[in-house]
Amino acid sequence: MSEFDLIAALRARLPPPGGRLLLGVGDDTAVTAPEGVAATSVDAIVDGVHFQRHSTTPDAIGRKALAVALSDLAAMGADPGEAYIVLGVPPDFDEEDCLALLGGAQAVADATGTSLAGGDVTRSPVLFAALTVVGYAPDAESLVGRGGARPGDLVVVTGELGGAAAALRLLEGTEVRLAEKRDLALRARQLEPRPRLAAGRALAASGARAMIDVSDGLGADANHLAEESGVRIEIDLAELPIQPGVAEVAAAVGADPLAMACGEGDDYELLACLPAEGADRAREAVGSVGCALTVIGRCVPGEGVRLRAPSGRDLGVRGFDHLA
Amino acid sequence: MSEFDLIAALRARLPPPGGRLLLGVGDDTAVTAPEGVAATSVDAIVDGVHFQRHSTTPDAIGRKALAVALSDLAAMGADPGEAYIVLGVPPDFDEEDCLALLGGAQAVADATGTSLAGGDVTRSPVLFAALTVVGYAPDAESLVGRGGARPGDLVVVTGELGGAAAALRLLEGTEVRLAEKRDLALRARQLEPRPRLAAGRALAASGARAMIDVSDGLGADANHLAEESGVRIEIDLAELPIQPGVAEVAAAVGADPLAMACGEGDDYELLACLPAEGADRAREAVGSVGCALTVIGRCVPGEGVRLRAPSGRDLGVRGFDHLA
Repeated sequence: MSEFDLIAALRARLPPPGGRLLLGVGDDTAVTAPEGVAATSVDAIVDGVHFQRHSTTPDAIGRKALAVALSDLAAMGADPGEAYIVLGVPPDFDEEDCLALLGGAQAVADATGTSLAGGDVTRSPVLFAALTVVGYAPDAESLVGRGGARPGDLVVVTGELGGAAAALRLLEGTEVRLAEKRDLALRARQLEPRPRLAAGRALAASGARAMIDVSDGLGADANHLAEESGVRIEIDLAELPIQPGVAEVAAAVGADPLAMACGEGDDYELLACLPAEGADRAREAVGSVGCALTVIGRCVPGEGVRLRAPSGRDLGVRGFDHLA
Repeated sequence: MSEFDLIAALRARLPPPGGRLLLGVGDDTAVTAPEGVAATSVDAIVDGVHFQRHSTTPDAIGRKALAVALSDLAAMGADPGEAYIVLGVPPDFDEEDCLALLGGAQAVADATGTSLAGGDVTRSPVLFAALTVVGYAPDAESLVGRGGARPGDLVVVTGELGGAAAALRLLEGTEVRLAEKRDLALRARQLEPRPRLAAGRALAASGARAMIDVSDGLGADANHLAEESGVRIEIDLAELPIQPGVAEVAAAVGADPLAMACGEGDDYELLACLPAEGADRAREAVGSVGCALTVIGRCVPGEGVRLRAPSGRDLGVRGFDHLA
């Protein structure tokens, strides 16, 4: 099957233009009628780096590629608009695989109200998917960057941490006796990450001043916020909302569950800083979209990230380096 | 050098936000204030497929990646706005190489009035660059898709053809005695392709009804226009504006210069269909931005592409298959 035929096959699967999308796949460009301001992010996942092609399904690759990209929109508090996907396809990744990968991305697009608006397919010695996502907000002030945190702000995180790191061990074959539901919930953190879009909008609307998604690891991502905002972020590790099952997996591989929750990435939760007086409102707003919100620390004058161990021991600035 | 350090180094090279770009590299997303309608295209070039890393410079890779992407905006008649770049970087492509590649892209951005607004760097076993470009127009009607050609329309092409195919032979080491200026002009078709942005806008403004950039080859791209418009496109090969030097290179490798001009891609000229009465106005408008415009055929009822050889011999529908 030629590149043209494959593009035609992919194209036939995509929904027709509608709403903001005036012209979709099949022309030189997609055409959209944006409103307000646009938030745009680009990202790529590569076989052997971000996923292992031979231990995951094409569907899961497509899901993960789009979900991870949309997580950047969540971190701005933007409404998802369009997504574009470029596939680099090696010779032994066939048409059916490509369609399954696209199907996975389409499922995430459907679940999040995103229009898969365009893309391209090219030959490549290694499988990769490059994603572009565009989200919208009424104005720039409605979006939350990384640089707005102030001393005195509380530091909050959505959902639960450590699950993605634990899932990696399970997918690699580590055997841990877990209730089936808990086991599946952990694995889903790698196979079907969920971008926290609704929680991101709720946080933006309830006064978050700085926000990022936890992709590199809580410590590293907190450090990005601290750097951009010019504050120090103090995190109480005892407060981290560790996902059920993480402790058991950590014990099985001789790791520290806090290191999994803080030193490893891929949880795609949102880490935000907001004025202390807004915390209750934010918890309520995030709760109303079915997501927990936990206060895990505060911003103080200074720089970097300071971690406090559950024992009360101060692990120092950027102490997450020791945990990772 | 870590991914973070490299991103920081790249970021330091980018110009600060301004104009439509409200927030640039360094946050979860870029933020723009679009006006009118947006035309978005995604594309990737991969080592070993679209370029040979060891026979080209990082600067040239960066130039080509962005120029080729912008060519899709030219083909819509859109004004270039922002570009985003994701680099997949193998271990032996070092920081200096990355900066040189980005420098090449920045040079094309500067030359075309494009804002390099964001990007990402990821490890990859193979070097690739995935580009997203966003252009703008006042409204959808100002843009030219592929589906508007009507029987009776003239078929026109900008600039000169065959140069990219000939340049490939020169870069592969074919020795041809050419005047230095002519030799350099040919090689530049591969090393520094120029997106026909001004010519695209001029064609759009002077009544082009269907347009595409010549990336797959004149015959194949004419076929895309024919399919989307529901017409047959007839091309007189004798009329093709063959770039000086192509005939000499073709002779040296025993190829047909018309096959180079019609059956091979990468010339990034624009192929457009427009009403016969608008041809003079279009030639004048395109000429005023320093570009030639040549009538090479016409649209008739039917389907596919019909080529007429210089001898007058009819090569049949999709005759370009025989040439390629």
